[in-house]
Amino acid sequence: MPTGTLFTVSAPSGAGKTSLVKALVDSDSQVTVSVSHTTRPMRPGEQDGVNYHFVDRARFEQMLDEDAFLEHARVFDNYYGTSRHWVRETLAAGRDVILEIDWQGAAQVRRLLPDTVSIFILPPSQEALRERLTGRGQDERSVIERRMEQAIDEMSHYVEADYLVINDDFDTALVELCAVVTAQRQSLERQQQRHRDLLQALLRHP
Amino acid sequence: MPTGTLFTVSAPSGAGKTSLVKALVDSDSQVTVSVSHTTRPMRPGEQDGVNYHFVDRARFEQMLDEDAFLEHARVFDNYYGTSRHWVRETLAAGRDVILEIDWQGAAQVRRLLPDTVSIFILPPSQEALRERLTGRGQDERSVIERRMEQAIDEMSHYVEADYLVINDDFDTALVELCAVVTAQRQSLERQQQRHRDLLQALLRHP
Repeated sequence: MPTGTLFTVSAPSGAGKTSLVKALVDSDSQVTVSVSHTTRPMRPGEQDGVNYHFVDRARFEQMLDEDAFLEHARVFDNYYGTSRHWVRETLAAGRDVILEIDWQGAAQVRRLLPDTVSIFILPPSQEALRERLTGRGQDERSVIERRMEQAIDEMSHYVEADYLVINDDFDTALVELCAVVTAQRQSLERQQQRHRDLLQALLRHP
Repeated sequence: MPTGTLFTVSAPSGAGKTSLVKALVDSDSQVTVSVSHTTRPMRPGEQDGVNYHFVDRARFEQMLDEDAFLEHARVFDNYYGTSRHWVRETLAAGRDVILEIDWQGAAQVRRLLPDTVSIFILPPSQEALRERLTGRGQDERSVIERRMEQAIDEMSHYVEADYLVINDDFDTALVELCAVVTAQRQSLERQQQRHRDLLQALLRHP
């Protein structure tokens, strides 16, 4: 039975993770991104089931009681979680799954599923990151400095990842990210699952 | 000090290994193919230093005595070997190196350099292989059957490889082969070697 690979993609905010993952999924039909459940309110332009599965707090806590999450986190007053059932079903259907989660979520997932492949996306320099975090210059200096400190804390966990992609040039980083995903499919174990009959037939003596 | 990755690429004759490796090297400037030493005579169209380093038997045996080969093999009356010095220098210069060798050579190299990444290229079916081995139909049936048996023996060692690439469609197989090579460069260890200063600077607190 062929099974997909589970990837975690982590990055500090401002490293370009979401754009890279979107471009990966657009270019590779065998990979799909998990849509998290959250209790935070929907924002203008967001769609239920696309950006998040929006649920109320009672429902989220019920799911927690049912052990429905592969990983979850509380950020300020909001919960976020990844559906264990959806991930299991999608992998079982032979599709690769990407979880866009922070280093703590990635660590939770690796503990449960040690075959998970973890990828960390990093900016090419603090200057580049600061520029991206500054955005359109609407935020105060102190807000930006706080974001930088958070980004540095997140980045310090890159050592826990299997692969690092440095997002200096977007197209290069995309090729590298795609390569990591494609290469896993060529691993002996995955190929043996996927091509069992072909491999048996190749070794048959006439 | 950044160092390249050593890859072995093995395949039965007729699987398209040489064409795939050539296309890989043409498309990726960071990777280079090892040119073997051999005692077999040069054939028309071949160039010394390009197809092989052509040496006489006395010289080859002297190199054997000097432990100059990472791996070597005797096929009928001819010797073939991979220069240990060249491989070491090329990897130390940060370039990836590909050795096109059979499963026995790959096993020798893995014993000496356990970080070697081994890739096996397989045809999509015995029928496709037989067609490629039949070529222009000039050979006798018994010759082809002997080649098929040799190919099956070689293929039975695919289980020793880290990655399998199935060469059904050439362009797809090339993307997959390139992905395996590119992905190794994104591994934590390689990236830490290559981007030590960048990674240190990223984590510096302002």
